[in-house]
Amino acid sequence: MIEIERKFLVNSYAFKKESFKKTRIVQGFLNTHKERTVRVRLKGDKGFLTIKGQSSKDGLARFEWETEISIKDANGLIELCESGVIDKVRYEVQVKNHIFEIDEFLGDNEGLIIAEVELNSKNEGFEMPIWLDKEVTGDIKYYNSQLSQDPFCNWGK
Amino acid sequence: MIEIERKFLVNSYAFKKESFKKTRIVQGFLNTHKERTVRVRLKGDKGFLTIKGQSSKDGLARFEWETEISIKDANGLIELCESGVIDKVRYEVQVKNHIFEIDEFLGDNEGLIIAEVELNSKNEGFEMPIWLDKEVTGDIKYYNSQLSQDPFCNWGK
Repeated sequence: MIEIERKFLVNSYAFKKESFKKTRIVQGFLNTHKERTVRVRLKGDKGFLTIKGQSSKDGLARFEWETEISIKDANGLIELCESGVIDKVRYEVQVKNHIFEIDEFLGDNEGLIIAEVELNSKNEGFEMPIWLDKEVTGDIKYYNSQLSQDPFCNWGK
Repeated sequence: MIEIERKFLVNSYAFKKESFKKTRIVQGFLNTHKERTVRVRLKGDKGFLTIKGQSSKDGLARFEWETEISIKDANGLIELCESGVIDKVRYEVQVKNHIFEIDEFLGDNEGLIIAEVELNSKNEGFEMPIWLDKEVTGDIKYYNSQLSQDPFCNWGK
């Protein structure tokens, strides 16, 4: 299926008190090629294998395929991944009729907070909460696959 | 799980009349890195996603994880693969208490026939049928992932 998402930096922790769900996510990549990525994810007490294609030119739409796998398989496959495992806490916040997923990164990406909202079409409007900062939709350096190879702690070095 | 396999070239078509099963296989790779490959396969009327690790030093043992996926998903994911899709016919032959899988390659790898036998341990013996030629266990150039990038028709060029 094709996913349509917009992505923003987050400039305060104000979103935390509005959050209805908080989940620890640990993930690695079996590859980080920009035309296709294969991700292994531990999300709470579930495992997932996710394959994503290249983004559309405007960065909004991207092919995504996912299957649930056991925690045991996910752990085994994360062992096989490229170095640079991503560790983060995901908060979910309802803003009017949209759900924002806000990732607070840990480890080598600590200090980075990114919010994503999924849309049904490219032109769909949505309420902008005050804690949203600059839009970074389509900026490859904020892809988790890139953050695993070139983490936030190295930026500006 | 860990798979233990030995791989041989095949020097005649004599195996065909001993075969009890014949299946068309079309497969692509989401990556072909030697430490980890991700394969999408159409095998007869089924689809599979398979992840393999690096081989042991002797080339015999290799981590392998597989899940069945729908034909529709397999077709969608093959579209996403690196160029160099592998097309072959797999014959299965029972030789005493072992089953040999013999792949007759088509397309850019036409002329290449490879047999594999799966073993329960590294030292397990087995009957060698007369149509088996040189052993190529652990020789990376005969990996399907490598054949997709450097096919048989280019060898010796």
